[in-house]
Amino acid sequence: MYDFSTWGPTARYTVEVIGTVAFALSGILAGVRKRMDIFGISVLGFLAAFGGGTLRDVLLDRRPFFWVAEVEMLWLVIALCAVSLVLLRLGRLHVGDKAIQLADALGLGLFVASGVQSALVAQLPVVVAVMMGVVTGVFGGVMRDIACNEMPTAFADHRPYAVCGFMGGWMYIFGEWLDWAGWVVALASIATTTGLRLLALKFDWRLPDWRNG
Amino acid sequence: MYDFSTWGPTARYTVEVIGTVAFALSGILAGVRKRMDIFGISVLGFLAAFGGGTLRDVLLDRRPFFWVAEVEMLWLVIALCAVSLVLLRLGRLHVGDKAIQLADALGLGLFVASGVQSALVAQLPVVVAVMMGVVTGVFGGVMRDIACNEMPTAFADHRPYAVCGFMGGWMYIFGEWLDWAGWVVALASIATTTGLRLLALKFDWRLPDWRNG
Amino acid sequence: MYDFSTWGPTARYTVEVIGTVAFALSGILAGVRKRMDIFGISVLGFLAAFGGGTLRDVLLDRRPFFWVAEVEMLWLVIALCAVSLVLLRLGRLHVGDKAIQLADALGLGLFVASGVQSALVAQLPVVVAVMMGVVTGVFGGVMRDIACNEMPTAFADHRPYAVCGFMGGWMYIFGEWLDWAGWVVALASIATTTGLRLLALKFDWRLPDWRNG
Repeated sequence: MYDFSTWGPTARYTVEVIGTVAFALSGILAGVRKRMDIFGISVLGFLAAFGGGTLRDVLLDRRPFFWVAEVEMLWLVIALCAVSLVLLRLGRLHVGDKAIQLADALGLGLFVASGVQSALVAQLPVVVAVMMGVVTGVFGGVMRDIACNEMPTAFADHRPYAVCGFMGGWMYIFGEWLDWAGWVVALASIATTTGLRLLALKFDWRLPDWRNG
Repeated sequence: MYDFSTWGPTARYTVEVIGTVAFALSGILAGVRKRMDIFGISVLGFLAAFGGGTLRDVLLDRRPFFWVAEVEMLWLVIALCAVSLVLLRLGRLHVGDKAIQLADALGLGLFVASGVQSALVAQLPVVVAVMMGVVTGVFGGVMRDIACNEMPTAFADHRPYAVCGFMGGWMYIFGEWLDWAGWVVALASIATTTGLRLLALKFDWRLPDWRNG
Repeated sequence: MYDFSTWGPTARYTVEVIGTVAFALSGILAGVRKRMDIFGISVLGFLAAFGGGTLRDVLLDRRPFFWVAEVEMLWLVIALCAVSLVLLRLGRLHVGDKAIQLADALGLGLFVASGVQSALVAQLPVVVAVMMGVVTGVFGGVMRDIACNEMPTAFADHRPYAVCGFMGGWMYIFGEWLDWAGWVVALASIATTTGLRLLALKFDWRLPDWRNG
C-alpha cells in the first residue's frame, strides 16, 4: 500500500500499523454499539481498516490487494478483533477518545498520501489522484457506516475530516510539482492532513450546512 | 463513455453534458435535503453522476474510467457543486421540477444506450448487455440513495424508470440486429427510453406492487 | 463458478441450481416484504443470487463473471422472478420455511467451497482464500439487506451463518493440505458448512453479543 521507499522502513511501518489499528478499532466499536455478533463485528473491523484501500485498488485495477501482498496486516486485524472482543467481555477495554482521535488522524494522513501516490504511479491526472487519496482515507469509514445502516458520519458530521485529507492530497501534488524528495512529499502530505484534523478537533471547527439553503 | 462515433460529436456532447448535470444535481439536492456538509453533498453529486458508469466499467473491467478519459466531465461536476452551493446559500437556486425531470430522462436514455453499447463491444451476450445498460442508467441513483441511508427510489417508487431503460436497451439490441447504422440505433434507443419515461410522468403510470401478494 | 471437475457434473449442477434458486428467492421475498415494484424485486433477486460471487470475481479480477460464462443461470433467475411474481399475485406461492432454510444451507455450502477454490487457483494465501469463501457465500445476502435499507442479518442475527461457512472454508484448506481428491475436498467442505448450519438451526445455537461489553 505504501511504498514511500525512501522513508526509513521502520517509521513507515509504525505509522501503517498505528493507522490500521485505529481504523479497525473504529469498526469493531461500531459493531459492538450496534449489538452485532462476532462475525458482524469482525466484518466492520475489516471494512473500516481495509475498505478504503481495497476500493482504491479496485478502481486502479491493482492486484494483489495491499492486504494480500502484506498478509501480516490481515493477521494484525484478525488478532485485534480477537483481543478486543476478549477485553470487552472482561470489561477491560477502555480506549480513550483522545488516543483514538490521534491514531485515526495519523491513519487518515497516511492513507490519503498512499492513495495519491498509487494514483500518480498509475499516471492518472492530478485531480483524480487527489480524489483517490480521499477515497483511500475516507471510504473505509463510509463502508463501515453503510454496513451499520447509518448515514456516513464523514458526509454529515460537519467536522472537517475528508476536507483535511483533501488539503493533504493537494499538498502531495504540490510537493511532487516542486520535485521534493519522495519522503519529504509524503511527510508534508501526512503532516498537512493530520495536523489540520487535530487542529479542527482542538478548536472545534465546523463546516457549514445548507439546511436553509 | 459514449463513442457513438457516427453522431455529430456536438449533438452527442450536448446530451452528455445535460445528462451528467441532471444526475449530479439530483445528488447535490439529495445531500442538501439530508443536511450534509460540503463533502457529503459533493460525494452524492459524484455518485449520482458517475456511479452507474463507474460500476459498469468495473464490471466490464474497462480502464480508464470514462471520467478519467474525459476529465473535463469531472471538472464540470466539481464546478457544478461549487456553483450550486453558492446559489443555494444565496437562495437563488430554483430548479423547476419539470426541467429536472426532462434532463434526467435524457440522461437516463443516453446512459442506458452507452451501457448497452460498451457491453456489446466487450462481446457480452445480449441479455447481459441490456442489464449493463440498465445498471449504467439506474445505479448512480441507487448508490446516491444508499449513501443517504434511504431505500433506493428506483426500487420502490412504482413509477416506471428502470423499466423504460430496459425497453430502450432492448430497442438498441433490436436495431443492431436489423443492422441499422450506429447513430440510428443509438437514437432509437434513447428516444425509446426517454420517450417512455416522459409519457410515464405525463400520464402518471404506476407499476403494481405485491403488497397483498 | 464451480469447477470441481471430478464431481459428476450432474450432482454439481443440481446443487448449483438449488443454491441459486434459494438465494434468489430470499431476495425476491425481501423485495415483496418491502413493497418494492417489479424492478426492485428483481434487483434484489439478482443481488442475493449473484452478488457474493460477483464481488468475489471482482476482488479476484476474474472475467467473465460466472453468470456470463453460464448465462443459463441468469435466465434461471429471470424465469424465477417472473414465475414467483405471478404465483404471488395469484396467492399461490407458499414456500415452507424449512424448505428455504435447507436450500439456503446447501447454497451457502456450495458457494463457500467454490469461493475458496477460486482463490486457491489464483494462488492466494490460505487465510485470504477462506475469506473469499465466506464473502462468496454471505455477501449476496449482505447486499440484499443493504439495498433494502436494513442492517444485514448476517451481521446481527446471532444465529451462526457466516461462522458455519468459515468452518467449511477451513475444512476445504485442511482437505487440500491432506491431498484429498478434488471432489472429496469439495464434498467435505460443503458437508461441514451445510451440516453445521442445519445443526445450528435445529438446536437453536446462539452467538454471544457484546451488548454489556
